[in-house]
Amino acid sequence: MPSHPGLHATASEIVPTEAARRPRTSRGAGQLPEGERPTEADAPRPAVQPAAATLDRCRSLVEPALRKAVRGLHPGPRRIASHAFGWCETDGTPSARGGGKGVRPALVVLGAEAVGAPADVAVPGAVAIELIHTFSLMHDDIMDGDGSRRHRDSAWKAFGTGPALLAGDALFALGVRTLAEVGGDRGGEAVRHLTVMLGELVHGQADDELFESRPWTGPQAVGIAEYRAMADRKTGALLGCAAAIGPVLAGAPRRLTYALAQAGREWGLAFQAVDDVLGIWGDPAVTGKPVHSDLRRAKKTLPVLGALAMDPSLGPRLDQLIGADTPPDDARLRQAADLIERAGGRAYALRDARSRVAAARDQLRTVPLAAPCVDELVALSELFVDRRV
Amino acid sequence: MPSHPGLHATASEIVPTEAARRPRTSRGAGQLPEGERPTEADAPRPAVQPAAATLDRCRSLVEPALRKAVRGLHPGPRRIASHAFGWCETDGTPSARGGGKGVRPALVVLGAEAVGAPADVAVPGAVAIELIHTFSLMHDDIMDGDGSRRHRDSAWKAFGTGPALLAGDALFALGVRTLAEVGGDRGGEAVRHLTVMLGELVHGQADDELFESRPWTGPQAVGIAEYRAMADRKTGALLGCAAAIGPVLAGAPRRLTYALAQAGREWGLAFQAVDDVLGIWGDPAVTGKPVHSDLRRAKKTLPVLGALAMDPSLGPRLDQLIGADTPPDDARLRQAADLIERAGGRAYALRDARSRVAAARDQLRTVPLAAPCVDELVALSELFVDRRV
Repeated sequence: MPSHPGLHATASEIVPTEAARRPRTSRGAGQLPEGERPTEADAPRPAVQPAAATLDRCRSLVEPALRKAVRGLHPGPRRIASHAFGWCETDGTPSARGGGKGVRPALVVLGAEAVGAPADVAVPGAVAIELIHTFSLMHDDIMDGDGSRRHRDSAWKAFGTGPALLAGDALFALGVRTLAEVGGDRGGEAVRHLTVMLGELVHGQADDELFESRPWTGPQAVGIAEYRAMADRKTGALLGCAAAIGPVLAGAPRRLTYALAQAGREWGLAFQAVDDVLGIWGDPAVTGKPVHSDLRRAKKTLPVLGALAMDPSLGPRLDQLIGADTPPDDARLRQAADLIERAGGRAYALRDARSRVAAARDQLRTVPLAAPCVDELVALSELFVDRRV
Repeated sequence: MPSHPGLHATASEIVPTEAARRPRTSRGAGQLPEGERPTEADAPRPAVQPAAATLDRCRSLVEPALRKAVRGLHPGPRRIASHAFGWCETDGTPSARGGGKGVRPALVVLGAEAVGAPADVAVPGAVAIELIHTFSLMHDDIMDGDGSRRHRDSAWKAFGTGPALLAGDALFALGVRTLAEVGGDRGGEAVRHLTVMLGELVHGQADDELFESRPWTGPQAVGIAEYRAMADRKTGALLGCAAAIGPVLAGAPRRLTYALAQAGREWGLAFQAVDDVLGIWGDPAVTGKPVHSDLRRAKKTLPVLGALAMDPSLGPRLDQLIGADTPPDDARLRQAADLIERAGGRAYALRDARSRVAAARDQLRTVPLAAPCVDELVALSELFVDRRV
């Protein structure tokens, strides 16, 4: 799984990139290459302040419960978890960096509010989602050998593989337990949603790892539909669960829960598409990951698969430059990244992300949800696309 | 966590060791050293056949559901899980070794029957317990760097650390999901029992790892009470949950569930004590582990702590021979093992194990449970003590 660098973005990093701030409607469509032409997703983006305010409000609601849950852990896993949440440094001293952005817990809270429930109802769900998300990052970093996350050592790098593995298990167990303790029919239903999501998460991760060893061309090549199924499980399932679990805990009608779950899945695919773009063209000084990191591992990401779909002649050249068995070489990686960009792969992925965020927005507006909450959800979802990290 | 070598014992290995077959009452107490003197636990042991028959019956009930659950996994984790359950070899070909002994699932089934419920009620609980047990073995082997389990490569050794880690996560998720799908109040209560146990399992494992770096003497030394709290979480919690989850799924009165949970915890401590003995004096040809394996890692096990309690002068010599920072050396390990045995540590641990099995038996006979099921449970619990592997 690629790292999800958004986890620990500080408030200042929520401010969009310069490109994102530039009103998209001012660009003449005729001057832009195919992939950059304005689409229905290119409506003027809302001001960012509301999203930051939403995140602050939800964090102040959820973080005390999250900290309380983590305090119950064994001191070893607790310290590793506190480091992962950005609450302390490797040596245990309190961190000045502050906690994560907290988009996922905010989705849980807004999901509950959108169906008319008080925010409190969502808290165990928000805590569970944040715990499970962090468990998955810890284990993914071990599997992928990723030594850094957001400019800090990843858990296994800072504390060792065994302790990081165990801390991940601790967060996994704590996440399920937090939700199981809600009890009643709604709590039971929430646990079922969570456990189905957990199965999907593992399945998607297994596919993602498997795809790395498959070629860029020929009958064994990974198609876009396969990629989507993988990303839907790996990233969509968690965001779908985050959006749906508030309504489930609130006992909302199934139709509303379903609409939020589907929107969450679209956001997940949008998030992943942008993650894929950052994994090739992200600024290492900002993302904290090596340049072209996903190409180095021959990861089957949307920009590459999109480029291949538009220009099949690219395949043999990619197999030569960044084949699964080709040792990485900076010049070849740069050449491959340029080829993919020229073939429109980068624009394809960004267009895909924007259209998914727009589709989620439109879908949410067709069901009877509290309009201000939907506006807040839509503003939050913009953060999945307009980010540099 | 020490490996739990009993997982894949074949039916022939259930036959007790020669020492265990020898009627204990025939030994003259006066001829035996302190630790070997007959205790109340030294009653003639029941014939083994009933336990083997119980295991066969419960396996035929549970294994189809377990195989069905595992079939739903992604092919990668599925293959690793099938290997761990002994169903296939590393290359995926069906295994002639057969599945595990299945003591834990049998405890779940007998627990339900003991409170008067049909065995079917227990199946999701038995599947969940077996999945969670196997997840914990897979992750423990990664943490401990144990490359073999029951004379086969462990999962990480056979398939790589990343895939084994992910397969463990897959079994963890599947275990919780299997139980969550039961639904209703009883299903919800069963999930709560499972998640509390999972937290204990991780806590106990974290303590066990932490204890390895602590000394044998001085104020930082690990005491027997600390060891017991660790073993109760690490091993007792899973067996306690296994024994209680059938009654929970059957909606049994709390008093009966509690009695079975407590008996399961005693069995867990007994199992761990014998595991500790085998981890020092087990025959490598039988256990599949290196000789003196637990001493090599300066693990704080019951035989050593018992010996230290009886003979505090042993401490400085152990710190010298097998201190946490002392590199392992075969001659020193052998010398340490001999010292511990002469101080009565081995006998202490075995006596502890037998008295716990006896205490569990006595406790179960004070509550209104189905007597034949209690007899079967007692016969099964003997297997925790009378084993070579």
